[in-house]
Amino acid sequence: MKFMKTLSVAGALTALPTLALAQDAAPTFDEIGPYLMTTLLFLVGGFLVFWMAAGFAMLEAGLVRSKNVAMQLTKNIALFSIAGIMYWLVGFNLMYPGDFNGFFAFNFVPTVLEPVGLSAADAALDYASVASDFFFQLMFVAATASIVSGALAERIKLWPFLIFVVVLTGILYPITGSWQWGGGWLSELGFSDFAGSTVVHSVGGWAALAGAIVLGPRLGKYKDGRTNPMPGSNLALATLGTFILWLGWFGFNGGSQLAAGTVGDITDVGRIFANTNMAASAGAVAALILTQVVYGKVDLTMVLNGALAGLVSITAEPLAPSLFGSLLIGGVGGVIVVFTVPMLDKFKIDDVVGAIPVHLIAGIWGTIAVVFSGSATLTAQLTGIVAYGVFTFVASLILWLILKAVMGIRVSEEAEINGLDKEELGMEAYPDFTKG
Amino acid sequence: MKFMKTLSVAGALTALPTLALAQDAAPTFDEIGPYLMTTLLFLVGGFLVFWMAAGFAMLEAGLVRSKNVAMQLTKNIALFSIAGIMYWLVGFNLMYPGDFNGFFAFNFVPTVLEPVGLSAADAALDYASVASDFFFQLMFVAATASIVSGALAERIKLWPFLIFVVVLTGILYPITGSWQWGGGWLSELGFSDFAGSTVVHSVGGWAALAGAIVLGPRLGKYKDGRTNPMPGSNLALATLGTFILWLGWFGFNGGSQLAAGTVGDITDVGRIFANTNMAASAGAVAALILTQVVYGKVDLTMVLNGALAGLVSITAEPLAPSLFGSLLIGGVGGVIVVFTVPMLDKFKIDDVVGAIPVHLIAGIWGTIAVVFSGSATLTAQLTGIVAYGVFTFVASLILWLILKAVMGIRVSEEAEINGLDKEELGMEAYPDFTKG
Amino acid sequence: MKFMKTLSVAGALTALPTLALAQDAAPTFDEIGPYLMTTLLFLVGGFLVFWMAAGFAMLEAGLVRSKNVAMQLTKNIALFSIAGIMYWLVGFNLMYPGDFNGFFAFNFVPTVLEPVGLSAADAALDYASVASDFFFQLMFVAATASIVSGALAERIKLWPFLIFVVVLTGILYPITGSWQWGGGWLSELGFSDFAGSTVVHSVGGWAALAGAIVLGPRLGKYKDGRTNPMPGSNLALATLGTFILWLGWFGFNGGSQLAAGTVGDITDVGRIFANTNMAASAGAVAALILTQVVYGKVDLTMVLNGALAGLVSITAEPLAPSLFGSLLIGGVGGVIVVFTVPMLDKFKIDDVVGAIPVHLIAGIWGTIAVVFSGSATLTAQLTGIVAYGVFTFVASLILWLILKAVMGIRVSEEAEINGLDKEELGMEAYPDFTKG
Repeated sequence: MKFMKTLSVAGALTALPTLALAQDAAPTFDEIGPYLMTTLLFLVGGFLVFWMAAGFAMLEAGLVRSKNVAMQLTKNIALFSIAGIMYWLVGFNLMYPGDFNGFFAFNFVPTVLEPVGLSAADAALDYASVASDFFFQLMFVAATASIVSGALAERIKLWPFLIFVVVLTGILYPITGSWQWGGGWLSELGFSDFAGSTVVHSVGGWAALAGAIVLGPRLGKYKDGRTNPMPGSNLALATLGTFILWLGWFGFNGGSQLAAGTVGDITDVGRIFANTNMAASAGAVAALILTQVVYGKVDLTMVLNGALAGLVSITAEPLAPSLFGSLLIGGVGGVIVVFTVPMLDKFKIDDVVGAIPVHLIAGIWGTIAVVFSGSATLTAQLTGIVAYGVFTFVASLILWLILKAVMGIRVSEEAEINGLDKEELGMEAYPDFTKG
Repeated sequence: MKFMKTLSVAGALTALPTLALAQDAAPTFDEIGPYLMTTLLFLVGGFLVFWMAAGFAMLEAGLVRSKNVAMQLTKNIALFSIAGIMYWLVGFNLMYPGDFNGFFAFNFVPTVLEPVGLSAADAALDYASVASDFFFQLMFVAATASIVSGALAERIKLWPFLIFVVVLTGILYPITGSWQWGGGWLSELGFSDFAGSTVVHSVGGWAALAGAIVLGPRLGKYKDGRTNPMPGSNLALATLGTFILWLGWFGFNGGSQLAAGTVGDITDVGRIFANTNMAASAGAVAALILTQVVYGKVDLTMVLNGALAGLVSITAEPLAPSLFGSLLIGGVGGVIVVFTVPMLDKFKIDDVVGAIPVHLIAGIWGTIAVVFSGSATLTAQLTGIVAYGVFTFVASLILWLILKAVMGIRVSEEAEINGLDKEELGMEAYPDFTKG
Repeated sequence: MKFMKTLSVAGALTALPTLALAQDAAPTFDEIGPYLMTTLLFLVGGFLVFWMAAGFAMLEAGLVRSKNVAMQLTKNIALFSIAGIMYWLVGFNLMYPGDFNGFFAFNFVPTVLEPVGLSAADAALDYASVASDFFFQLMFVAATASIVSGALAERIKLWPFLIFVVVLTGILYPITGSWQWGGGWLSELGFSDFAGSTVVHSVGGWAALAGAIVLGPRLGKYKDGRTNPMPGSNLALATLGTFILWLGWFGFNGGSQLAAGTVGDITDVGRIFANTNMAASAGAVAALILTQVVYGKVDLTMVLNGALAGLVSITAEPLAPSLFGSLLIGGVGGVIVVFTVPMLDKFKIDDVVGAIPVHLIAGIWGTIAVVFSGSATLTAQLTGIVAYGVFTFVASLILWLILKAVMGIRVSEEAEINGLDKEELGMEAYPDFTKG
């Protein structure tokens, strides 16, 4: 659908404006209106996706045990900050090189914004401001890193995790991102991923999966053939996090229309908002009903993850489906979560917050569901899914193994038992409250 | 003021564009600018009102006791999701039928959005995209349902409550909504309710009141002629919820201008923002001072509800009053809360979060206050208030009684004492913390 | 850079429209487009800055001990509400008098908004709607007051604090604000403070410093030459508050461009968003690394305050620097926090949340850093810093001393030990949980 997410910065700055502007006359709104509207879309969409960083932080802080909350919060604010720096330093230009061999660009240049007070004659009037585009894209890479932090919670050391984030946000995500949104080989092949079920969510999921395997499960999680539940310490925070993510997703999917200055484009953004909301609702309701039927009791964390899985599922194609189609796509996402969370436990892969079912499995489903809309062939979609999976999983696995060998990635048994907050940070998230 | 909130979907799609567009020339911003701006207003307003769902969830989670928090969260995310599906399935077209007898439309048709990439020639250029309008309106019905969940907390069973939500959001709210915003008999009569003090908030309040009566008070709430306080478990969450609702209200009232593409309209949206903020501030300050004077101590939950009552009060007419008028209208709302919360207790109506004082009583006050602005006659306003009250209260009462007879609506005594979280969901919101 | 933040209300209403509008023809988008976009910028920017009120409330509620949380929440919602009323009653017209001696205007007139349905011919088409401007500016004064509440937490009485807020938001802030943004003597002198590192943040910091000195430290904070840590009760809330503030800051800095209707202006807003995010990221990462290096352990509250200090630092000039420049400016902010928090303790100035390092010290740094961009001379910046400091500190000191003499500003020892919640409010924030 949208195989090139942005012009390269260099390209944007040197591109000939699409409309010849008389040097002396003030440009008319017919000339600049679309630029204003699309730039605004990126700014509003961007701050909404920024807000998802808070959503991940609250979701994860709510789903870990109280002894690891401060650490989880630290990881979340740190990873977002690191992503912001790395994506500027190398990521953005690596992802949107403009001109490259389709697989990898040697374009290690920090992002440079337009000059202050850009004139209309120097602007890419058929698109948007580079700064707004950079701001918007940056928030996506941060989401990818957030996915990893949730899965590996409660046992990974802080610094190896942050080093992984440096590489993921600066190198790995931008390389594979360029395959699709940078105009690389997968976009040429006809792979379609509107807002990133695969490019963002599955990538985060694959990196998390590799980490979870190398890291191993939490102490006592799988014992004597049984899976011991380790319930999250604050479901109010987890629910808040889910609502925040849901809100941010309107920016995530809506902003990915990448244009808002025509009747067709703004109407499409509206379609995307409505479809996105429907998919989330359907995912939540599916998990609600299913947990009641299967387990005899509704499971709130499943409902939350059901909503999130609905959102991930619609992300690969939030525009083309009808509202009913979105209900089906999102509903299947909710079903996936209910069945794959226990499946992971069978393989003794310990994913603390359910990030792999939500972002990886539902991401794959959403990417395949694009085929129903006719926006891409099944072959193209499977090729993309496999390519992203193989590259990200293997690269992440290697990186985790190196980190493990060089500095160790897991805290000591004692620290894990006493909690990372006391042992690693020397502070507690809820010091005033007695823990039972 | 605004008696018809939207065109029907069918109407919008077939309406002749107001401006003749040359088929071949690109439409100018003079032709499409208002459509872009109003659609944007609905999208931004809509995500702000979406955010109110999180606000209700946090407010209610903070005001119930810790043993019922997970259930309250479950109800909130479930009701929002159900509203999203029901309003698509029947609600939206039932509420905005375009053509009907003024009381009820047999228009049970799911919502269909415009096609992807709508051309300007096919758009309702004097309004906004159908998808954006649907998205915006949908959030209002969800707010109505949220009001009910708060009042009935800590003792109602999950599934009967959700069935009530299905009927409320799919049938009851849309029918009465159409009387005013769908161009029905009350709008013809001159009833005025700009953003829904009555149409949204009182309706939620009436449904809650009927439920509270059928359900009865919590065990031990009224004993030996005394009202036992059952303080909320997390006032930080309750305050967060209030701030979220306050933020969302800018979209609620501002978006209800239903237009943003002229100087007059966008300036009016600004007026509405400023007035809305003033009314909330005045409600909070009124409750602050009153509780100090009356009880000798400031009561935080009263201040929170005072702000919310101020918001509900200004909702029927947030445009016409001056800032000083908004201060008075909102301030009276804050006063109402302080005096009606204990009054409900006298009637042994147990409203856990104060939803009935805030949304029903202040909603009635706000609807009457429209008369001071000259936007409607007192007769028209009272007619509307009574019509909405009678229909919603009676219909809700019947529905609650049916649900009670068929499946029971109240949890067992044991479940109520041990908490709905453990008994009904088998999980706790704060499992790590010792409860005193 | 922007030395006059707004026209006076009176000025705006009587100003001749910049474009002659034919009385009978509908105005074109070329004529009204910039007005629509800038008004929209103020509305979106304004609700984002509103959201910062929730951010301060959560940050402070998270950083005080559990026995003082309800009081801290009460102070925050009350101060915001009072600011909303006082800024309408006197503040706005005092700050933007249009015509005055440059130091002080005797312009004690409540704010009046434009009439409903303003015609384009009567609008200040080169700027924005008065209501939207008022709404936006109002949120800034509330931020100033929020800064004070954090520093003085856990020991100040409610009502003296609120009286201070009345004077600060109605008189003190507007007077000094007018020196720069009202077109007063500092703007004439060439002092530059784009979005308020000094005008907003340092002013809050000076008022807090004066209060902290008069009030004295919490009982037991400094004992036998040692500083006793009094850890915050809920770091999840504190982190949420930081993310909320970060989000709101896009409106704070971006909206301060005060224009969005040309290619240059909207592109500049994008630059500001990107720079603001970079400065926050750099502040967080700087504190992350520094606390690891200096203390051997990462300190989450320092990382949070590092991000906030980065934001304050970039606020005086978020437009001119490159992304790399923003990284340096914000990074220094993060360093400042790590070193000045313990420094304050040496002087036995007890600042509960670190408001003085974050808002005052980093605010001074940010104001000086403007010189590197060439937007102002060092002399002008130092003059401004000193002028704001002397006036606000002295006026605040006098006011605190008067309040102390007249009614007392500090709670009793008993109340401080038992907690302000029980003693002053008679309620608890977390009544269900056992405190250790």
